[in-house]
Amino acid sequence: MSGGFPTLLPMTQQRSIDDLRAEVDQINRDLLALISRRGEVVAQIGHAKSAEGRPNHYDPAREEQQLKELEKINPGPFPTATVKGIFKEIFRASLALEESNDKKQLLV
Amino acid sequence: MSGGFPTLLPMTQQRSIDDLRAEVDQINRDLLALISRRGEVVAQIGHAKSAEGRPNHYDPAREEQQLKELEKINPGPFPTATVKGIFKEIFRASLALEESNDKKQLLV
Repeated sequence: MSGGFPTLLPMTQQRSIDDLRAEVDQINRDLLALISRRGEVVAQIGHAKSAEGRPNHYDPAREEQQLKELEKINPGPFPTATVKGIFKEIFRASLALEESNDKKQLLV
Repeated sequence: MSGGFPTLLPMTQQRSIDDLRAEVDQINRDLLALISRRGEVVAQIGHAKSAEGRPNHYDPAREEQQLKELEKINPGPFPTATVKGIFKEIFRASLALEESNDKKQLLV
């Protein structure tokens, strides 16, 4: 690859790799902001449940409900199994955060 | 728990669990839209790289660059290791999608 401009490609359809990567970087930042916000809201749910005397964070029925809704609206290109895998990772992260918050409260 | 309203909690600070869950559901939908858009843009990068004669999709240096940027701007509450775990799952999904697209092209 000489590094020259790919003049054989139709310019109207083809965005540069740098341009596409800049969009991915922006999406990453937006994803991180949303994932972080989600972590905060889930922590608030944990506090509200504790206040109601429901200290258990793991709620498989609620997770299943979220996964079913995502399955219904999945626009692609990822297969639903892949989408579920990503969200299960997010669920796991939230649960770990809740458990870490519990430990901190026990130490106070 | 009687199911009654938690009147002992300050209403100005405490949102209901239903309300908080509705926000989580909205965040899930936004996350799915962003993850799906990211998949499409990464597929476009794959096409552009193929057009330049660079067919390999796995690019550890590019992944490392994205993870470093995310580490820099991580606002919490998730530890950076957790954020990286979630994004690695997203990277894996994108790579699987690219490889599946390659196979489809070979079959055409």
